[in-house]
Amino acid sequence: MAFSIGVDLGGTNLRIAAVDEHGKMLEKITTGTDVRRERDQVIAEMCDAVRALCGRAAGELRGIGIGVPGIIDMRTGLLRESPNLPGWHDYPVRDKIEHNLGTMVVLENDANAAALGEFWLGAARDVSSMCMITLGTGVGGGLVLGGEIWHGMAGMAGEIGHMTIEPEGPPCGCGSRGCLEQFASATAVVRMARAAIADGSAPELARAAGQTPELSARMVYQMALEGDRAAQRTFDVVGRALGIAIAALVNVFNLPMYVVGGGVASAWHVFSPTLLEEVRRRSFVYRATAAGDTPMHGTHTIVTRALLGSDAGLYGAARLPWIEQGKSKK
Amino acid sequence: MAFSIGVDLGGTNLRIAAVDEHGKMLEKITTGTDVRRERDQVIAEMCDAVRALCGRAAGELRGIGIGVPGIIDMRTGLLRESPNLPGWHDYPVRDKIEHNLGTMVVLENDANAAALGEFWLGAARDVSSMCMITLGTGVGGGLVLGGEIWHGMAGMAGEIGHMTIEPEGPPCGCGSRGCLEQFASATAVVRMARAAIADGSAPELARAAGQTPELSARMVYQMALEGDRAAQRTFDVVGRALGIAIAALVNVFNLPMYVVGGGVASAWHVFSPTLLEEVRRRSFVYRATAAGDTPMHGTHTIVTRALLGSDAGLYGAARLPWIEQGKSKK
Repeated sequence: MAFSIGVDLGGTNLRIAAVDEHGKMLEKITTGTDVRRERDQVIAEMCDAVRALCGRAAGELRGIGIGVPGIIDMRTGLLRESPNLPGWHDYPVRDKIEHNLGTMVVLENDANAAALGEFWLGAARDVSSMCMITLGTGVGGGLVLGGEIWHGMAGMAGEIGHMTIEPEGPPCGCGSRGCLEQFASATAVVRMARAAIADGSAPELARAAGQTPELSARMVYQMALEGDRAAQRTFDVVGRALGIAIAALVNVFNLPMYVVGGGVASAWHVFSPTLLEEVRRRSFVYRATAAGDTPMHGTHTIVTRALLGSDAGLYGAARLPWIEQGKSKK
Repeated sequence: MAFSIGVDLGGTNLRIAAVDEHGKMLEKITTGTDVRRERDQVIAEMCDAVRALCGRAAGELRGIGIGVPGIIDMRTGLLRESPNLPGWHDYPVRDKIEHNLGTMVVLENDANAAALGEFWLGAARDVSSMCMITLGTGVGGGLVLGGEIWHGMAGMAGEIGHMTIEPEGPPCGCGSRGCLEQFASATAVVRMARAAIADGSAPELARAAGQTPELSARMVYQMALEGDRAAQRTFDVVGRALGIAIAALVNVFNLPMYVVGGGVASAWHVFSPTLLEEVRRRSFVYRATAAGDTPMHGTHTIVTRALLGSDAGLYGAARLPWIEQGKSKK
């Protein structure tokens, strides 16, 4: 049985998986390697871990896919921009690893890799096109159009987190104001909860925050689950902002599926009623194509949560060498 | 020389052109047929006009493309929704005309046809993907991705006019609020100018409006050209709203070109400074790829005005039979 290796450089620790061609995960390891450490060391430890994994897997290795947080020049395999991996800028990552391991290496933006994972094996496995929105520390996005990742002209497509939601909203690190990321990321959830605590409208959140060194989006989610109105209002803002963005995407793309993933998507059942109400109100294309009780893939617009959790990026990365191989056969 | 016929059903009068395969317009006629009249009569007069045009053109007719304001089922050639052509709903337009004229007929949404025209012969002739925004009575849009019109799942893609710009902005006929169409259409320009007159902030506009039975977007544009601040402020709103929408499209698609056309685009030099400033502020993807003094097609993001005016839809429609023929050869 042939297999490939998927690597996720997107989190704090380096994660690696061996996946067979049908999408069965053969083995998954989370290394102790902090990806924020020195570049050459991260790459050396990655290569060691891949070799160890290959030694244990039976079958032929077809290549390695790596999901990277940043903008990749798909042609040269250079990292053009990667705020979280500063030492990697314009470094020939792909060629170095190919040389070290002697096998095909494909780099991909981590949000695109997660979209590809959900497209291959997750929520969007039965449709031909999809849009994925990943809610983490920031908000990322990936597009699969007609079966292929849409990279855009310079590999920068899918920056859904920086669509404007409120033109005069909170300033964003990107230089704009009121971006989706300022309302729907884990960072935004914490900021909004802190603001509610500060203005006295969230006594329960204030109490909970007082008992912990650091308020997290997960805590706000837990409080919302327990019925705290202030915490729920925070997730109403998340749902409304996502709804405004997804309604625009439905109107512009008319895709069969929009998938919401990432850590904050754990709170899906808290914010999705607001999200779906907003999409319905703001998109006549959605209303004309919305699924009834029995959604039919490919004829209805489906807005749903991701299914693969944090493994989406690993599966998607592992899929990359197969796609690359298919292209070179053409 | 082989040629095709393009028909534009999108305006008030029926317009028809014979175009050769290189995009040279052989003849163009604007018939007296009001497209809002009874369906069968419009179709009969269209067929008569096409026959007359063919009689005069030397060469072989390869087919007819028709731009229609509405949503078309591309497979069946039925009009699924067309607010401006109420009697045409679910009528087999394509089959009837094919039968009447004995040649291939291709229907397309009129905004998509305009995009295809600019892509073939206009502003976007040197790029492989583009997005067109047409500012008329409403705001329409069309996408060409990798050389092909992107229809989406149900032929409803490209509804750029209904992206939300201001979540609590003016109500829109689509059921949402604050859509791009509410800020950047001719209708919106007139509404905003009337509001400025009503609140006393536009004395010159008030005087001009008093001398005419009906205030038009063109008049507001003329006043802006003559330096009237109130009229200019109206177009600042147009530019800002378009800038917010285009910034989102740049962030999501990373296309090489975004083209603004339609009647209101005549005021391009009045609203484009505000538009471009807003795109620059709101899209780091734009800033990373913006053209300098010498824009290079395909490596820079270009936001520009359409070149073909109201003929874009005619050219695009005439292109349709050629594309259809290419597909059937595959």
